[in-house]
Amino acid sequence: MTPSDLDALLTWRRDVRHFRTDPVPETTQEALRHAMDKAPSVGNARPWRVLKVDDPSLRAQVRAEFVRCNRAAQKSYDPATAEDYAQLKLAGIDRAPLQLAVFTETAPAAGRGLGRQTMPQTLEHSTAMAVHTLWLVARVHGLGVGMMSILEAAEIERLCTVPPSWRFFSYLCIGRPDFEDDTLLLHRAGWQENAQTKWGSR
Amino acid sequence: MTPSDLDALLTWRRDVRHFRTDPVPETTQEALRHAMDKAPSVGNARPWRVLKVDDPSLRAQVRAEFVRCNRAAQKSYDPATAEDYAQLKLAGIDRAPLQLAVFTETAPAAGRGLGRQTMPQTLEHSTAMAVHTLWLVARVHGLGVGMMSILEAAEIERLCTVPPSWRFFSYLCIGRPDFEDDTLLLHRAGWQENAQTKWGSR
Repeated sequence: MTPSDLDALLTWRRDVRHFRTDPVPETTQEALRHAMDKAPSVGNARPWRVLKVDDPSLRAQVRAEFVRCNRAAQKSYDPATAEDYAQLKLAGIDRAPLQLAVFTETAPAAGRGLGRQTMPQTLEHSTAMAVHTLWLVARVHGLGVGMMSILEAAEIERLCTVPPSWRFFSYLCIGRPDFEDDTLLLHRAGWQENAQTKWGSR
Repeated sequence: MTPSDLDALLTWRRDVRHFRTDPVPETTQEALRHAMDKAPSVGNARPWRVLKVDDPSLRAQVRAEFVRCNRAAQKSYDPATAEDYAQLKLAGIDRAPLQLAVFTETAPAAGRGLGRQTMPQTLEHSTAMAVHTLWLVARVHGLGVGMMSILEAAEIERLCTVPPSWRFFSYLCIGRPDFEDDTLLLHRAGWQENAQTKWGSR
């Protein structure tokens, strides 16, 4: 792969919130599953855990939790900002055909603790990289991903009845995007312009 | 880009520990810098902060800190495991021509707090995805990356004299790999086999 091929992929990876409702084919779901197998992982602990959420009543409960947290978040902005915020329509949860709840196993047997004794949070970092890997693989299959984190972790853990050692990471809405656009959603909505990454030096 | 192109990239992305010492050209460093500009970021807060570590005495101090933490980690394994561990030669720090200390700004102005009120750790998750993006861009430029996390965060923050709101994320050793191999370093050393990612369902 050339640098410009990858650059194009990274440019077109998008946080998508508006989905078409046609289902994600099983073969594509399989590709998404295998994507995470190739993610890096500190000490190779591979701590990500994934639940596919199909149950409509569970989806409705997650949605309600998002509405509750979203409302609480809006209170801390001024009214105009809160309105922007609402307009962002962050929840693809109403339409996305494929929805995954992602967790981190905080006490994985795999990897034997290598590399995480000084920084246990590397487990969550590994999950983040695995989700990013899935995101890129979704893109080459023509799928968008919306990552939801405006949720109370403990509540999602309770709703999904996960083992006590699992820590909620994020809720992913996946499907074909309703439109293609090369302007980021948050930028179109005037939320935040990109700043370039600079390196300091020491 | 086709799914198989991306699959090949993900397969060949490797945690590298054995580097050639020839310098990374400035144009390639520029590409690595820009890589992070395209990383996803919760609320677009873009909290990653990068310091390029050139100063030989600072490199030596980071190395010493790694040796100290590595020694402490070895004590908690049985002798045979500790020996494996030592043999992994985790430190590319002695040879990697380009070394970056990566931090997370825990109080970024950008993004106005969007999406992280319930889960402040999403800032570190964003940094993880930015590092993964850099990792992939490094790969298409023929470079390997070794991520070091066996370090005490507070000590690296002190050594690098960063602002109090910066939290150490990881130390990256970057350069041309000394050898190409399609078997993971940890696997060759018998440390941990890959488990496939399964999805549960709810």
